[in-house]
Amino acid sequence: MPKDPDYFRGRKIRHSIETLEGSLIRKVAETNIGRDDVIALWFGEPNEATPDFIKQAATAALDDNHVFYAQNRGIPALREILSAYVSNLHGRPMDIDRLTVTASGMNAIMLVSEVLIDNGDNMVVVGPVWPNCRQTVQIMGGEARQIALQPDQNGRWQLDMDALFDACDERTRAIFVNSPGNPTGWVMSEAEQRYMLDECKRRGLYVIADEVYVRLAYDVPKAPSFLDFAEADDPLIVINSFSKTWSMTGWRLGWLTHPPALGEVFSVLNEFNIASPTTFVQHAGVAAVRDGEAFVTQMVEEYRRNRDLVFQRLAAMPKVNLYRPEAAFYAFFAVDDMTDSLEYAKHLIATTGVGLAPGRAFGDAGEGWLRLCFASQPALLSQALDRLEPALS
Amino acid sequence: MPKDPDYFRGRKIRHSIETLEGSLIRKVAETNIGRDDVIALWFGEPNEATPDFIKQAATAALDDNHVFYAQNRGIPALREILSAYVSNLHGRPMDIDRLTVTASGMNAIMLVSEVLIDNGDNMVVVGPVWPNCRQTVQIMGGEARQIALQPDQNGRWQLDMDALFDACDERTRAIFVNSPGNPTGWVMSEAEQRYMLDECKRRGLYVIADEVYVRLAYDVPKAPSFLDFAEADDPLIVINSFSKTWSMTGWRLGWLTHPPALGEVFSVLNEFNIASPTTFVQHAGVAAVRDGEAFVTQMVEEYRRNRDLVFQRLAAMPKVNLYRPEAAFYAFFAVDDMTDSLEYAKHLIATTGVGLAPGRAFGDAGEGWLRLCFASQPALLSQALDRLEPALS
Repeated sequence: MPKDPDYFRGRKIRHSIETLEGSLIRKVAETNIGRDDVIALWFGEPNEATPDFIKQAATAALDDNHVFYAQNRGIPALREILSAYVSNLHGRPMDIDRLTVTASGMNAIMLVSEVLIDNGDNMVVVGPVWPNCRQTVQIMGGEARQIALQPDQNGRWQLDMDALFDACDERTRAIFVNSPGNPTGWVMSEAEQRYMLDECKRRGLYVIADEVYVRLAYDVPKAPSFLDFAEADDPLIVINSFSKTWSMTGWRLGWLTHPPALGEVFSVLNEFNIASPTTFVQHAGVAAVRDGEAFVTQMVEEYRRNRDLVFQRLAAMPKVNLYRPEAAFYAFFAVDDMTDSLEYAKHLIATTGVGLAPGRAFGDAGEGWLRLCFASQPALLSQALDRLEPALS
Repeated sequence: MPKDPDYFRGRKIRHSIETLEGSLIRKVAETNIGRDDVIALWFGEPNEATPDFIKQAATAALDDNHVFYAQNRGIPALREILSAYVSNLHGRPMDIDRLTVTASGMNAIMLVSEVLIDNGDNMVVVGPVWPNCRQTVQIMGGEARQIALQPDQNGRWQLDMDALFDACDERTRAIFVNSPGNPTGWVMSEAEQRYMLDECKRRGLYVIADEVYVRLAYDVPKAPSFLDFAEADDPLIVINSFSKTWSMTGWRLGWLTHPPALGEVFSVLNEFNIASPTTFVQHAGVAAVRDGEAFVTQMVEEYRRNRDLVFQRLAAMPKVNLYRPEAAFYAFFAVDDMTDSLEYAKHLIATTGVGLAPGRAFGDAGEGWLRLCFASQPALLSQALDRLEPALS
């Protein structure tokens, strides 16, 4: 029986949880949320609200009383339209049995860790990357091992596939790869994807592909996807989300594409994690997929212009080094002489009123870098860059 | 390296997950959802839609563009009004630091298992009970041990506290208790609650109290709650939900009350499970708490009349044995000669068109019983009872 008087003061929690580090982005942002004088470019979030036609679909679903529990794997109408959408996007038929609706891409990643990670297992993660996938592994008592992309002599991010697989051992369950990448804007080629999947099949590993930015590619119609070529039974689980493609961050809606044999598993896990995502939000999701293409096309064009604006301005600042992002909506840049990106990001908020994400939030390899989200208005971005220029020159 | 050709056909998943049983209620219901000829009394769900004032608040929040990410622990307005509501309900001040908004009571229970259950740990659960709490323990690699309430000579459910604590060992982390109870309608007394909490403090265990039915008590103003007397730093985590009290099942909104020292832990876990619950749903939650008292009062009165109707009718059927439910919205009754409640429930759907939940869904101790949800219209309940009468006589 415990004798420590501090036993119950919140300390009697699992060691894995006790050492779980909250997002450093949140650490910079949370106390500053809602401040009018800050230009907030810290989160991976469009600053334009969800399009009206999606909000109207949610209101209509409320009027129709879609307010009851729904099927564990999502309402049939949403799974059906996702099946058509995914089939069309990747030019291959996607059976509805391979699709499970989730309460966000984040929740989808948590479910994947619940499926794969036993105590002592590990997942090898291509970084620098949005940290949350690593933390779901830790929650399950596993270890996330990050292998960092490295800029080549032109500054373009490169994946060292040998280093990646050298990091695998007998407790490795999966490779986690996010392409297009947050924060790097890195885009994995189809050749790399094919090699990775083949090697994972050979070694008995899953590929967990976070493809939430697949539509946000600026120099090609869409980024390469594992779903362009993978077979249904391949050991591949793809994470997707409504947040970025249809500007629905606060709605909490996403989906998983998985081998058909995992359908029942994800059904049961959805039930015990959340039952099913908010019912009328799923109906709004149907409208997003069905009627959203014009919106997506226009949004990508706007982001492309923002990308060019931000890249040109940042590249001209003497202390800044960056590669032109090929996809997603981030400028990830190195700053000369910056040794502590968290402190530096806080300092920038205090001195310039511009909120950026510290590179260290994306793993040790991100130290020395900052991330700016350019899913914003050009005028606001210009103002932010004006404010940053003296500090970064 | 694995050689089994079936290796990737969905089998390479954690053993804990492979053996995770989906809800037997869902097994009865899912293929029959939407059938017009079935009177569906299987789920724990009001059949009246969410009140208009709450739906209107959601629409207004959409119009106000509350569609972005929110704070990990919930929007301040919701935590503040919950603080006032909980303080008022229990007659004790409830600091906002002890409240974390969650994406449903279900998700809250999952977060609790993530905090407490390491591989090989166990939780002792008072049953028969809604099974989902047990499954979250299994997902984390732990064991849920169910100690069954037993009907006394009058049919009233009784908790054997000695048996409960005898089931604890050095790997026990918590007692999970749901009072008012689903499916039993059992109401734990304050004396029992005080004994349980004291004994848990002595033994170094948490009490996890699922109090989602605390407002739905029929013979007293409200059911006893651990929050009526517990101190802030006691090892107590209370689960709550908007689903039952404000008829918001499909919305996925709930909250946790916990020692202040666990605030940061739940903040981080919310982030890595779902970021935060749907933002405009949280705004609707503010309206529910602020303006919902008249609705709750009227709803409880309607459920009380339904309770009386269903109890009188069922008690008069020769094959049926039940105790008058004191709270929650279920009639949980034993059927003479029924040996397989799952098959019997399926048989009832086929022969009578009435959908009930099989008792075995609530643990082995529930075998031989059926659950009828009376959160419905009296006319529909009468019709269902008319149809059931020949089978149960």
